[in-house]
Amino acid sequence: MLGILGRGPLGRISAGLLSGAGAGRAAVLAMASGGTATGGSRSDDAPAADYVHDRQAFLAHYDGLRDSVVKDEVYAGTPSFATEWLSKMLDYNVPGGKLNRGMAVFDVVKSIKGKEAITWSDVNKANTLGWCIEWLQAFFLVADDIMDNSITRRGQPCWYRQPNVGLVAFNDSIILDVCIYRILHKTFASEPCYLRVLEVFHEVTAQTAHGQMLDMITASPPGERNFDRYTMDNYMNIITFKTAYYSFYLPVACGLLMSGVEKPEAFELARNILIPMGQYFQIQDDVLDCFADPAVLGKIGTDVQDNKCSWLICQALQRASPEQKQHLLVSRV
Amino acid sequence: MLGILGRGPLGRISAGLLSGAGAGRAAVLAMASGGTATGGSRSDDAPAADYVHDRQAFLAHYDGLRDSVVKDEVYAGTPSFATEWLSKMLDYNVPGGKLNRGMAVFDVVKSIKGKEAITWSDVNKANTLGWCIEWLQAFFLVADDIMDNSITRRGQPCWYRQPNVGLVAFNDSIILDVCIYRILHKTFASEPCYLRVLEVFHEVTAQTAHGQMLDMITASPPGERNFDRYTMDNYMNIITFKTAYYSFYLPVACGLLMSGVEKPEAFELARNILIPMGQYFQIQDDVLDCFADPAVLGKIGTDVQDNKCSWLICQALQRASPEQKQHLLVSRV
Repeated sequence: MLGILGRGPLGRISAGLLSGAGAGRAAVLAMASGGTATGGSRSDDAPAADYVHDRQAFLAHYDGLRDSVVKDEVYAGTPSFATEWLSKMLDYNVPGGKLNRGMAVFDVVKSIKGKEAITWSDVNKANTLGWCIEWLQAFFLVADDIMDNSITRRGQPCWYRQPNVGLVAFNDSIILDVCIYRILHKTFASEPCYLRVLEVFHEVTAQTAHGQMLDMITASPPGERNFDRYTMDNYMNIITFKTAYYSFYLPVACGLLMSGVEKPEAFELARNILIPMGQYFQIQDDVLDCFADPAVLGKIGTDVQDNKCSWLICQALQRASPEQKQHLLVSRV
Repeated sequence: MLGILGRGPLGRISAGLLSGAGAGRAAVLAMASGGTATGGSRSDDAPAADYVHDRQAFLAHYDGLRDSVVKDEVYAGTPSFATEWLSKMLDYNVPGGKLNRGMAVFDVVKSIKGKEAITWSDVNKANTLGWCIEWLQAFFLVADDIMDNSITRRGQPCWYRQPNVGLVAFNDSIILDVCIYRILHKTFASEPCYLRVLEVFHEVTAQTAHGQMLDMITASPPGERNFDRYTMDNYMNIITFKTAYYSFYLPVACGLLMSGVEKPEAFELARNILIPMGQYFQIQDDVLDCFADPAVLGKIGTDVQDNKCSWLICQALQRASPEQKQHLLVSRV
């Protein structure tokens, strides 16, 4: 399974997600020669032969999407202090990640259509879908950080810990989620794949929220010290739902749909390849949560303090003697 | 404007929402003679001449929808403690309200199609859409109660205050939201109105979350005593977004879409009638928050403690002398 890491577009997803890398690639502004750096204003079918899909090119799409959300006609009449809050909240939470999930959509489309056939319209649509995945990620992270009482994220204080934010961040996370469907509406409403794209976002969001529920209700409340649910079966179930679907399956599913692929077997095959990659990624994330340098990881791990059913405790329980298990139980915070 | 309250299906919405009534109608189990109490198992086009649309008939649809969510195939492999949690959480939060929003969908469909033309399939679909609105309401209430630090809701402790719930309730609110799209997928995927129904739910959810944002960022944080934003303009903007769209416009929009109405003018007309009704409802809700008996209201109001930009403070500021305003500022909690 792990042999496939590092090859082709899926390799980019896995290597990037696992290592936290992604900024080391050519930093030439994509589409610079075409004069439309965001890609948002070009929707023609001209070949995008000179498009270089790097972090900077992907980031160049963000501002236009942020502005379209802030100026959305469904919020007509909103006072300026509210649009300022919204804009600041989006900038704080959406674009600061590794961006590998979002960038993967274009890789998938390019793999399927072939580099020569890619148009500026494809670039724009793939990167818009990619940003929707980054918005989804931001929604989950802002929410999870509150629930896990986390301290830092992506090298800065968690959004809810910013002055005057607090529990407003909870509603902000909901806004991050609803933005996805406003962006999709504006960009994909007349595309043949629109309905199926909506459905895959709904399905994956449901699975991720379900995974978060499993994660939280498996962790025993501080007063109840109990390891009955800390089995590898439960663990694999949690991480499949909370991480693997949205981080690995969703970018590829979006790329397939945008390329006109509809056969269920293609999505089944993608799932069979991508879910184990997502599981492996989360296992590594669990190890890093405890052992990585927070300055490198960008966050301070809280899995142990939160009594999380993480890979480490599940592995420890498989190896521990009865006395060691008792010691673990007593020492839980 | 208020003259239309109490007449026809819209009158039912407004009268019910305003008074908290709704249980005083005939309690005969709908469809009892047909032997399919939930309506979920009948999808034929036989006339539903003997269907009585009352609270009990509507409630009879809930169990089937709850079970379809709990046993959803996208959660395959979930351990039993998780399905039990989900089931308990849904039962605690979804069906306990006045149900007027949800019940209004059938009223709209009946008004458009005419009583004689209503089929069992219409009954099933209208009530499914109605329950999706109740699910949306549950999502907002569970979330808002955490953000407002509320104590009781619908005559019982807020969900997040239940033992062992706490911030898990935050994720539960997200699950309540995602359920909507799973239910719609199962019931409406092959219906002509499916895409437009999804879009109206997205749009109204975006507007409601936006209203909640306006509500929260207008309330000055306890340390900052400032009434600059407590204007009637800001107030009307807040309540239009946070309440009027989902409580009044959404049920009617769902009924229109289910009846095959697509003309933008129909939705514009509905909005023009329903938004002022929603505004009036929220103004009354603000007065009740402060002055109603919690035992009758089903909740303990916290608007004053939360520094909310409510109708009362906006009205008081319009009438207060400079000395009285200063007194209000100093006395804010």
